[in-house]
Amino acid sequence: MARWEPNASERLTEAAMELFAERGYGKTTVEDIAARAGLTERTFFRYFTDKREVLFAGSELFVKKVVDAVRSAPKSSSPLDVVLSAYEETNDFFEERRPFARRRNALIAAHPELQERELIKMTSLTTAITDALKQRGTSSAAASLAAEAGLAILRVGFDQWTKDLKDRSLVFHLRAARRQLEAIVGGSKKRTRHG
Amino acid sequence: MARWEPNASERLTEAAMELFAERGYGKTTVEDIAARAGLTERTFFRYFTDKREVLFAGSELFVKKVVDAVRSAPKSSSPLDVVLSAYEETNDFFEERRPFARRRNALIAAHPELQERELIKMTSLTTAITDALKQRGTSSAAASLAAEAGLAILRVGFDQWTKDLKDRSLVFHLRAARRQLEAIVGGSKKRTRHG
Repeated sequence: MARWEPNASERLTEAAMELFAERGYGKTTVEDIAARAGLTERTFFRYFTDKREVLFAGSELFVKKVVDAVRSAPKSSSPLDVVLSAYEETNDFFEERRPFARRRNALIAAHPELQERELIKMTSLTTAITDALKQRGTSSAAASLAAEAGLAILRVGFDQWTKDLKDRSLVFHLRAARRQLEAIVGGSKKRTRHG
Repeated sequence: MARWEPNASERLTEAAMELFAERGYGKTTVEDIAARAGLTERTFFRYFTDKREVLFAGSELFVKKVVDAVRSAPKSSSPLDVVLSAYEETNDFFEERRPFARRRNALIAAHPELQERELIKMTSLTTAITDALKQRGTSSAAASLAAEAGLAILRVGFDQWTKDLKDRSLVFHLRAARRQLEAIVGGSKKRTRHG
């Protein structure tokens, strides 16, 4: 029987991130990760299905937090406010994980198979948000547009947050991206063409 | 040597769409498709790598048309106008293909592996548009936001277009989706919270 190991998940994650940085993602095995963490492979597989999941285990929790926040948002809020407030509630979750998030972003950018997985996760997040908005009574088209506009803001805001040398908060960067999207969507020079 | 067959690609596409509707996508083989079209499997493989590509061959052309239009847009246009004008230029391309687009949409909605492929294609489109906007001098964040806002409008506009019982044009639906996005992004009830 495997014995209980304190902080096994955190130790495995830390070991994996070290090894991905030292040897590269492709050359790191589950065996290496477990050895570096001073744990067995069997313990690894109690927490993660494979080495890729070390990078994605947190996404499940993120999606759950966001969808719960959308579901419990005040009825009077506009769809985009609902989505962005839900993202803002994850500020502290990410603040604790900024060094991890930075290394994770760099790894994903360098590996197409990780990009694909991230893409699919983000799409299932958008679908879950769209459904939660529709359950609040938002029309299907407006729910899709608000969820996708929210995702655009999250992508840009998150990217700026990971790159910010001044370490300003995710909320700061989400609001900046929202204002920028407002300027882009509302600020057409040719409004009358589309009016 | 395979002899030249007139309209082979169109005949194969038509045969595939018929069979997907009659037997289901999963139960249709390349052999079936070639036989229905009165052509050989060898001829099929000169046009498509597999049966899935029957549904995606047109996307390459669509991406090329859109990216070319972004590249040749007037310097004075705003990033979102550039993207949407590029999508509007594909109006006639899609008008000729509305029945195909409707059947294709239904197939993709029913098959997760096709959804995944569509998602990856749409992401590479967004990346190509973002890069083309950056080459025009748009900042990286603004280029991403305009490309993703454009994609949100395309998704919703295209979906409404395939469902429209009145057969109004893609341009009509893109403009309607744009106005709706403007209302969603600009129309927050709590602007001051984010100001």
